Amino acid sequence: MVERRKPIGVAEAVKKVMQYQIKTEIETVAIEQSYGRFLAMDLVASHDVPAFDRSPYDGFAIRAEDTESASSDNPVSFEVVGEIGAGYVFEDEVKPFQAVRIMTGAQVPAGCNAVVMLELVKELEVEGKPTILIKRLFKKGDNISFQGEDTQKGTILVKKGTEINPGIVALLATFGYPTVSVAKKPVIGVIATGTELLDVDQPLEPGKIRNSNAYMIMAQIERAGGVAKYYGKLDDDLEACLTATKQALEEVDMLITTGGVSVGDYDYVPAILKELGAEVLFNKVAMRPGSVTTVANLGVKMIYGLSGNPSACYVGFELFVRPMMRRAMFNNAPHLRKSKAVLGVDFPKANPFMRLVRARVDYQDGKLVASPSGVDKSGIVSSLGGADCLLLLPGGTRGYEKGMSIDILLLEDSQGSEWPWDNIVASYK
Amino acid sequence: MVERRKPIGVAEAVKKVMQYQIKTEIETVAIEQSYGRFLAMDLVASHDVPAFDRSPYDGFAIRAEDTESASSDNPVSFEVVGEIGAGYVFEDEVKPFQAVRIMTGAQVPAGCNAVVMLELVKELEVEGKPTILIKRLFKKGDNISFQGEDTQKGTILVKKGTEINPGIVALLATFGYPTVSVAKKPVIGVIATGTELLDVDQPLEPGKIRNSNAYMIMAQIERAGGVAKYYGKLDDDLEACLTATKQALEEVDMLITTGGVSVGDYDYVPAILKELGAEVLFNKVAMRPGSVTTVANLGVKMIYGLSGNPSACYVGFELFVRPMMRRAMFNNAPHLRKSKAVLGVDFPKANPFMRLVRARVDYQDGKLVASPSGVDKSGIVSSLGGADCLLLLPGGTRGYEKGMSIDILLLEDSQGSEWPWDNIVASYK
Repeated sequence: MVERRKPIGVAEAVKKVMQYQIKTEIETVAIEQSYGRFLAMDLVASHDVPAFDRSPYDGFAIRAEDTESASSDNPVSFEVVGEIGAGYVFEDEVKPFQAVRIMTGAQVPAGCNAVVMLELVKELEVEGKPTILIKRLFKKGDNISFQGEDTQKGTILVKKGTEINPGIVALLATFGYPTVSVAKKPVIGVIATGTELLDVDQPLEPGKIRNSNAYMIMAQIERAGGVAKYYGKLDDDLEACLTATKQALEEVDMLITTGGVSVGDYDYVPAILKELGAEVLFNKVAMRPGSVTTVANLGVKMIYGLSGNPSACYVGFELFVRPMMRRAMFNNAPHLRKSKAVLGVDFPKANPFMRLVRARVDYQDGKLVASPSGVDKSGIVSSLGGADCLLLLPGGTRGYEKGMSIDILLLEDSQGSEWPWDNIVASYK
Repeated sequence: MVERRKPIGVAEAVKKVMQYQIKTEIETVAIEQSYGRFLAMDLVASHDVPAFDRSPYDGFAIRAEDTESASSDNPVSFEVVGEIGAGYVFEDEVKPFQAVRIMTGAQVPAGCNAVVMLELVKELEVEGKPTILIKRLFKKGDNISFQGEDTQKGTILVKKGTEINPGIVALLATFGYPTVSVAKKPVIGVIATGTELLDVDQPLEPGKIRNSNAYMIMAQIERAGGVAKYYGKLDDDLEACLTATKQALEEVDMLITTGGVSVGDYDYVPAILKELGAEVLFNKVAMRPGSVTTVANLGVKMIYGLSGNPSACYVGFELFVRPMMRRAMFNNAPHLRKSKAVLGVDFPKANPFMRLVRARVDYQDGKLVASPSGVDKSGIVSSLGGADCLLLLPGGTRGYEKGMSIDILLLEDSQGSEWPWDNIVASYK
């Protein structure tokens, strides 16, 4: 008999999932391996930047007061008493009308309070001594990068939970972190179910299709920052699925099954969840595609029954799995980043459920314009390749028109959002 | 004596670099390892999708013509002669007023030409035989996904040189690619020079700073899709640098040195390039930061002398190294993606050279708004962490104001652009 399921709203469904927490762990990696990981600590400036008063140019360090009378007509002469490369320190004290040749980045010698750029001096020799002529006034502090002017010791530069980009790697190196404390990548198990599935290396057979969802989800797991563990493709056999599920749950933080969640006779996910004693949060969501999405909790682990339909599976992952992963890596904007965009084409088909349409966002004259990346139909995979966002089209009785302002979720953005599910509207402005 | 260098424009500099080609190679990886790699072949549909006429719903397959007289008042009865799960094929021929129970995704049996959704039938038993009642007319083709309606065999779905995302992984699996031909990752060597540099694990010393550029560039190489090979930090010693450079060039496709390119006395890069017999394309670019950027060619290898200044080094990599890497991976939009954006703050300081300001882009009501991610000053690293784009502010005699429309380059986008360097303007609209 057909089981009747009550759909819940998308926002409510995501909220239900986010009430649970999976395990979070910390590990230490070498700075060279830190790119793309999530900081498990605040990155604090361990010293002032610059750490000392330094020269931003190649030039000569002087005492500014000695240039008081300098002009084109009356150049002032300075004896060059030494030179100092970046990384060296000038040990002597610089006296009036003395100058020290200084390289970019080097520490300004004691006694000096200005740097004159190389191009602005005339170099010559006077009585066998290297000398420079300066033709204008310099003020105290001219061309000096002062200690702490960029960053003061103790400043929090990057917050815990931030994804490490190349700039953050530079900061880690600057402040002396040869190793970095990062969130351990959550391990997500993947099981594909369905007698109709062939392995990717099998030839096509009548009535069968190749298993694409499992490989797709593994890439989505990697993109979201986790580690995928594939448990293979199972036949539609309850006992086999149950055994595999139990084994997988021992080894992963979350487990995803694809297929086996609709109300057809061969769908075992509900039975498996019951057998495991898992708490089913919902088994139907008011969205297209992906209405037959099931999420369940078992202690610190989550179990997802995603649809066997590739689009639904894709969307289900991004909505319900990704934010759990990213929050477990301390990220406080774990959901996909939301933005307004202009709808690039008509979308006449109304649906009582919210539609999440795979789309591509284009920047047109500084505005975001989003259009479906292919015909959005169940079971169609060819539009997935071009998708970099999801259109959010609220459920209702009318379709949507080109030029309307809508909400989109960006798929390839690392910034994320704290909670994108309020005020999803499509309107003319 | 000071060497006078003639600056060339940014577009001209990038063009000069792109006239050269580094080696491109192909390798085969398992589909599970293909995410983030670049396709070395067109992805062609190896069969129709669907590969057979299939049911998108759970329901009953029937002959549409048998429902001609069906209505609420006059339900038509069908004998259910079998059932067929996804992956199975119904072998018999379906006769008039017979129906076959069919699961989502299963092949429509021979003789049938429509599917009736489960919810729309009444199931009962008539004379011990399973029977359904249908209360409305169905047309030929109703609820059938026809063979090839999504994609026809032979269609090019994804072009060679495209970065593989989760959707493309799904396509690879669907069309039977257990292994994938991808571009080999270019290997980029990194050498840091400068006596002022400490290793990341060394305590600070007077006048010295830690080496941050090398680690930053390694992360940029990884982000751009390459493999970084670190040759360590060299002292400002010509012979040592020359030996290391020669050794590195044996092992890499491109070599990046940071530091040692300004006109200071300890800068050896020009001497090394001369010694190697490399052709110097330019040694000064009309941009801030990064004016003292040197690029040279040696056969199929490129040598980059990037500034020791972190911002300049960062920008130099993205402008001159990244597109060479991505083109070597067959990508035909190898440069950073360009977009218009609204300038979020005043930027009053004029500069005769084009400025490339590290910035953060925000989506405000569907428009891109970009603001500097920190004080943009030479040597400052703390603004690098928050940067996800570069503002392009053309050189000139005037500054720029909040609200102007400017061009930006997106740092964390995988789409790229074919050639972003034409028509860089900042204006009120």
